Amino acid sequence: MAEPDAEQAAREQELTDRVAASFAGADDERLTTVLQSLTRHLHAFLREVRLTEDEWNQGIGFLTAAGHITDDKRQEFILLSDVLGASMQTIAINNAAYENATEATVFGPFFVDDAPRIENGGDIAGGATGQPCWVEGTVTDTSGKPVPGARIEVWEADEDGFYDVQYGDDRTSGRAHLFTDDDGGYRFWGVTPTPYPIPHDGPVGALLAASGRSPMRAAHLHFMVTAPGLRTLVTHIFVRGDELLASDSVFGVKDSLVMDFEEQPAGTPAPGGRTVEGTWARTRFDVVLAPAD
Amino acid sequence: MAEPDAEQAAREQELTDRVAASFAGADDERLTTVLQSLTRHLHAFLREVRLTEDEWNQGIGFLTAAGHITDDKRQEFILLSDVLGASMQTIAINNAAYENATEATVFGPFFVDDAPRIENGGDIAGGATGQPCWVEGTVTDTSGKPVPGARIEVWEADEDGFYDVQYGDDRTSGRAHLFTDDDGGYRFWGVTPTPYPIPHDGPVGALLAASGRSPMRAAHLHFMVTAPGLRTLVTHIFVRGDELLASDSVFGVKDSLVMDFEEQPAGTPAPGGRTVEGTWARTRFDVVLAPAD
Repeated sequence: MAEPDAEQAAREQELTDRVAASFAGADDERLTTVLQSLTRHLHAFLREVRLTEDEWNQGIGFLTAAGHITDDKRQEFILLSDVLGASMQTIAINNAAYENATEATVFGPFFVDDAPRIENGGDIAGGATGQPCWVEGTVTDTSGKPVPGARIEVWEADEDGFYDVQYGDDRTSGRAHLFTDDDGGYRFWGVTPTPYPIPHDGPVGALLAASGRSPMRAAHLHFMVTAPGLRTLVTHIFVRGDELLASDSVFGVKDSLVMDFEEQPAGTPAPGGRTVEGTWARTRFDVVLAPAD
Repeated sequence: MAEPDAEQAAREQELTDRVAASFAGADDERLTTVLQSLTRHLHAFLREVRLTEDEWNQGIGFLTAAGHITDDKRQEFILLSDVLGASMQTIAINNAAYENATEATVFGPFFVDDAPRIENGGDIAGGATGQPCWVEGTVTDTSGKPVPGARIEVWEADEDGFYDVQYGDDRTSGRAHLFTDDDGGYRFWGVTPTPYPIPHDGPVGALLAASGRSPMRAAHLHFMVTAPGLRTLVTHIFVRGDELLASDSVFGVKDSLVMDFEEQPAGTPAPGGRTVEGTWARTRFDVVLAPAD
């Protein structure tokens, strides 16, 4: 990449300035701010790498392929944002650390709005296969005060690494919502999380392969916790000891979200009135919610 | 947009660094360079504007809509690149000024590979409506030496602002290729270029409308000129006096590409053995090709 001479650099800068100026008249000042910044950073990228016309064509082809594989069940642009760390960066920007509040991580593409309600102690598996796993904890504010009635959405893949919506039938499994009790406590059965790849048969998978990167996500269980007057928390918990913690394909792992999942020998009496044949696991996740902004 | 404190900024920077590092192992060093630079500039954009999660969702929605409107006749991602000036910046980067060589501009989405051949003096209109326009000139190298046998592709919209491929039938009109004669000369009939909007019924059109920008392109006639040993030139000529020269929606105008189109009164004898009823126009475009890199 030869550096451009001063005259060429000035010509390139003049173009960037002209494009940025074209966005000065947006209805909405925020739109001007966002599009001018996007223009300047996009042009800076093109100029820094001296993007070739062939590479530009490849970029257009990549976006086109991503668009064509995307439908109401597959979201390649979210995957792209995820593997570029843009999703996680947006999470970081909007969920600044607040005292001892639980950290947020990526939302992912597999949340479903109307998951069934379960009672405390119930089972979210709904037929999802995997080792039974007991999850319990509390929801408090940052002063330690319990939050009764907090809504907890949980969702996870089965032991084959698939969410219900990926099966293409109408099953609902591995997802539910429940509410904390009067003491801010919650508890439910699910399955022990297992690692799985993000969908990698499309352009994002090809990008990862060409980059020598794995599509695997570290094993995790999704949470979204909402309560009036408190900041909504979207997060996961991860499994301590999972060898993928350091190479999660979407950069979602935070140390504070790695939990001990304690495997229980077959025959160990299980909570929630359940009889388990074989082994099961248990973990604890105490959620601390920041105040709403 | 509150500035993040030092701890938050450090957390954001650490994420950017981690994502960039994940691309270090690509098969191809160039891929590492491009993806690391893309990562850094993308994250810098997100951090600078403090992109909200709603805005991130809007961005995903925008890309999804662009993907879904794109097919083999409509290319929304090229339009997006065009209106962000990214196409023109890529052209600028790859076609640095060289002595007196003719300047390049955007390729656009309407080129077709196998346009019919015409002889010098022939007509490219093929049924495209508009005022007849005689175009002539020479192709030389930067020393002024004529280039015989240079291949000239020309294409343009009709007076209603549509290219043949936009009609959805199989017509071929307003496009052709020809070759320079032994003296490097060329000449053909076309139609006088008229302004037209880029396709603006999709997400890019909505973006322009929200930004207070017009979708109109300044009137132009496309050229692509190729000859052995010389740099391929992709350019347009524009019409002096067109009021859209200063606000071309894709930033394609360069002063050196604005030509005089001289309108001829009805009855003026026309070149190329043609009898024209009514007015016609004529212009001259002398092409100078840089050496191949």
